[in-house]
Amino acid sequence: MLPATLTWHGEGPCLRLLDQRLIPAEISFVDCRTFEEVAIAIENMTVRGAPAIGVAAAYGVALAANESPDLIPAAIERLSKTRPTAVNLFWALDRMERLYQKLNASGALAYVQIEAEAKKIHEEDVRINRAIGAYGQALLPMQATVITHCNAGALATAGYGTALGVFRAAREAGKTVKVYADETRPRLQGGKITSFELSQDGFDVTVISDSMAAFLMSRTQIDAVITGADRIAANGDTANKIGTYALAIAAKHHSVPFYIAAPISTIDKNCPDGKHIPIEERSGDEIRAIGGEVILPQGVNVWNPAFDVTPAGLIAGIITEAGVLVPPYGNQIKELLEGRA
Amino acid sequence: MLPATLTWHGEGPCLRLLDQRLIPAEISFVDCRTFEEVAIAIENMTVRGAPAIGVAAAYGVALAANESPDLIPAAIERLSKTRPTAVNLFWALDRMERLYQKLNASGALAYVQIEAEAKKIHEEDVRINRAIGAYGQALLPMQATVITHCNAGALATAGYGTALGVFRAAREAGKTVKVYADETRPRLQGGKITSFELSQDGFDVTVISDSMAAFLMSRTQIDAVITGADRIAANGDTANKIGTYALAIAAKHHSVPFYIAAPISTIDKNCPDGKHIPIEERSGDEIRAIGGEVILPQGVNVWNPAFDVTPAGLIAGIITEAGVLVPPYGNQIKELLEGRA
Repeated sequence: MLPATLTWHGEGPCLRLLDQRLIPAEISFVDCRTFEEVAIAIENMTVRGAPAIGVAAAYGVALAANESPDLIPAAIERLSKTRPTAVNLFWALDRMERLYQKLNASGALAYVQIEAEAKKIHEEDVRINRAIGAYGQALLPMQATVITHCNAGALATAGYGTALGVFRAAREAGKTVKVYADETRPRLQGGKITSFELSQDGFDVTVISDSMAAFLMSRTQIDAVITGADRIAANGDTANKIGTYALAIAAKHHSVPFYIAAPISTIDKNCPDGKHIPIEERSGDEIRAIGGEVILPQGVNVWNPAFDVTPAGLIAGIITEAGVLVPPYGNQIKELLEGRA
Repeated sequence: MLPATLTWHGEGPCLRLLDQRLIPAEISFVDCRTFEEVAIAIENMTVRGAPAIGVAAAYGVALAANESPDLIPAAIERLSKTRPTAVNLFWALDRMERLYQKLNASGALAYVQIEAEAKKIHEEDVRINRAIGAYGQALLPMQATVITHCNAGALATAGYGTALGVFRAAREAGKTVKVYADETRPRLQGGKITSFELSQDGFDVTVISDSMAAFLMSRTQIDAVITGADRIAANGDTANKIGTYALAIAAKHHSVPFYIAAPISTIDKNCPDGKHIPIEERSGDEIRAIGGEVILPQGVNVWNPAFDVTPAGLIAGIITEAGVLVPPYGNQIKELLEGRA
């Protein structure tokens, strides 16, 4: 049984986060009782995965509202500074901000409304993932062999998952899915989290180093590569965990379809293309050391971008809760967002 | 000052190997006094790098000859079973075998001839690397930014290096070379050994995770990707450290020339193409744990090929001690080998 990514405890109140830094060695939880604690948990990757970060941030605002609705603007400001690339964070904070602007109550009554909105974002996420799964699974054959990167699973969301949700939905539709999981250096979310999540759930999962995926495609029939996304620009260019771009190029080279699975909230209509997506660079220590072991010689330079950008031209389809977008993406994305505005 | 990959001590005799498993944390040496000790050192990667393995194996035969020339066939047999992919191993053992067949002496006199042949292979390797460097450096601009994978340096050879020898020769020719080194999972030879070797030697070196190379190419002007090789088939298909193929695909996608730097002894004329190159699969534990830390959940499947095959079509040039071969490779390789036969 997979532990929950995040649970909300209204009495307290308290946001309980699964500490994803310790998986699979340890299942333990971090309780956040202030927005500052949530912000730190996002920064240090106790909670990770674009959709999960969005939900956590919404609850962070609720924790501020519980203390005092006057703290809400400061909480939104603080939480928006935690990580720059995943847009779901800003999308969730925007929703909270809009509600705050409209609040017609103060004190405890205001808190009730803010908390309800955070819970709504949380509950919507699971429903959205199931819809993504339903649309995405139709793209897979009865006996599918797939590659995924990083963790776009139940543990990256409020539950079920985006890319891994597609695999779950395929299995529910009677298909078999054999998954190769890139280990995903430097933080190894694929090796640690995806392999844990999928094996707990009874999937046939095999871990490879990131550099092996291309060779695997040349030696084995791969039916699809599916990953999540941290931000999708208005033209379909997609930022996702570093290594996604290399994987998409390899997929193209082998004529393997490369799909993105992500909620519509991942689309940033104000971002015209991938060049405008801010890419977080994290500490070189993530590459310099693994666990306790220092790997690199002292003082050697390191470049550690946490994300990369896959151009729309390499993406065979973007699987959303409203259906599968196919290239060219520009107009479809525009229509989709206008239809919802 | 870079420690020597291997040194031969005639009194004893003894082959002293730098223990490459401990770099950069520790500079220590393993002394081999029997061919079995050399075989184990090749298997457990105390010594690694195709040219260095060839030299070590030749000295392994010399150690057997010192004990008794009758042991030579058994030593050749044992050493040939250590690692399947790098062809320099078999090339060096073939040379020792041919000499053994022609031996017109026994006992100590036979040993003198066998030892002299091993020393010759050793000395030739450095000269060959310098010639590779001279031809290869001409391919680089005055201010070059390059990517390399694994370690094809002084520490993979008897000294100077193949791919890294090209960078050294460029610097000797007055050029500046900025090197990005793939960390090279799972054994991290790029992160541990190449960054150590190049920074010791005063190069500007930056380590990246393997999955970052493609994104780097999209954001920075890369002038060339240069790697070593473990076996080159008669048509130019090349086996090298796992991840080389993905890197070559990414280079092609970005119109960056991808070069192989390797001695002619790396060419296997009996191997028509890459499909016929045996690919060593190593223990999944190399991916499951790093240093002392177990990363993956218990029991999760792992695929761990140690090498991959880059098709000739992705290779812009093969830099050898006889010049730079360019596509199509088939006839040039044939002429080159016939000219030397």
